[in-house]
Order: sequence, then C-alpha cells, then structure tokens
Amino acid sequence: MTVKKSEEIPLEEVAGGTATSRQVLIGDDLSPHFAIRRFVMQPGGGMPLHTNTVEHGQYVLRGRATVRLGDRTLDVTAGDAVHIPAGVAHSYTADATEGFEFLCVVPQSPDHIRVIEGEG
Amino acid sequence: MTVKKSEEIPLEEVAGGTATSRQVLIGDDLSPHFAIRRFVMQPGGGMPLHTNTVEHGQYVLRGRATVRLGDRTLDVTAGDAVHIPAGVAHSYTADATEGFEFLCVVPQSPDHIRVIEGEG
Repeated sequence: MTVKKSEEIPLEEVAGGTATSRQVLIGDDLSPHFAIRRFVMQPGGGMPLHTNTVEHGQYVLRGRATVRLGDRTLDVTAGDAVHIPAGVAHSYTADATEGFEFLCVVPQSPDHIRVIEGEG
Repeated sequence: MTVKKSEEIPLEEVAGGTATSRQVLIGDDLSPHFAIRRFVMQPGGGMPLHTNTVEHGQYVLRGRATVRLGDRTLDVTAGDAVHIPAGVAHSYTADATEGFEFLCVVPQSPDHIRVIEGEG
C-alpha cells in the first residue's frame, strides 16, 4: 500500500491548456484499473473544447468553473461530482478570482485527445 | 454527461462501521469501469480491520485519521492520496476532534468484505 502527500508530487503543465497543471496521484504503477489525477487551474485558466477516448469521473475540490459538456454549459463548484462519457466534447474556464481544482478518474486504457478547433 | 451536488446525495450508514456514512457519487449507472464514493466519519468514528477483494484509490478531503494498512499504522490527513491493493487488511480511526472525509475509487467488479475479528 502507498500513501502520498499531494503537495510533494510535481505538478506538470498540461499541453493545450491555459494556466492548467496536473499531477498523477494514483497511476499505472499502482492500479491496473484506474488512474486518479489532480488538475489545478489558475484564475482565468482552462482547457479548450476537446474529446477523449476514455470516460472521466471528476470531483471538484476547490473554486468554480464554467464547463461545457456536450451541448450544455454550466457552472460547477466545490463538492460537485461530474461524469463525462468517452467521446463527449468538454471544456473548462476557471473562475477569474478563485481558480478551479478537481480530481479526475480515468480507466487504465489508452486515451486519444482531440481538440475541437475554433471553439472553446 | 451528469453533474451532481454531493450535498444533495443521501449519505447512508456503513454496516460494520462506527459513525461512518457513505454516498455514491459515480456508480454503475454511469461508469462501466469504476465507482467513486465519498466516506464521512464523524469524530471518533471509523471502520474495523477488514479486507476487500477490490483495490481502493483514495483521496483525503478533510480532517485526519489513524489508518492501519497491512503491517503499518500511520496518520493521514487532507491532501493525502492512498492506494490499498486488493486483499490488504486496513482500518480507520477518525480524529476525535476533526473527523475524517475521503473519496474512495474502486473498480466495477464484485467486492467481498471480510472483517478480521478481534483486531481494529
């Protein structure tokens, strides 16, 4: 068994994002089934509209964001749980004051990310 | 896609626990791969030593606890990530003042729980 302090794990900039970084809390070195990552978006940061080939199960730890999920746009905030099926387009715009921090669980299978140009 | 507010999801008492309740944030209605549950232990609450047939990936949201993991006993606190492989005995004793709250991710497969009598 393994215990890690999240503040001791490096945060790495996310390619394609704005002021968005990520750390892997539970990766394929530990779990054959899933990975748990923590995303940190600075105020005004975010990710453009994109799809993944893996589903996402998320839990908002801190702050708030405007999230586009398929054809819906909604505000999410600390304590919200979000499920995004594989293939559903989504984007994030972190709150300009508070920023946004969330956990994202994915299955251990290859992910192909496709950015949807011209939308965000 | 689905967004849920955790404060609107019922918390259910966990059989075998002490002052411990649980809610399912992402269940088998949403994900074919994993489930995300939130556990809330009141001050002094906890779970006795037990094993599961599924691994656990956990993230501590609030408070602190003394956790036994296999042959180790350690304190975990908000921001810690914990991985417990299938079959490893574990127990929780929530802090007597702050309580303890964490997310627990499990794969979508049958879980058999075995309580280890006479230890805690």
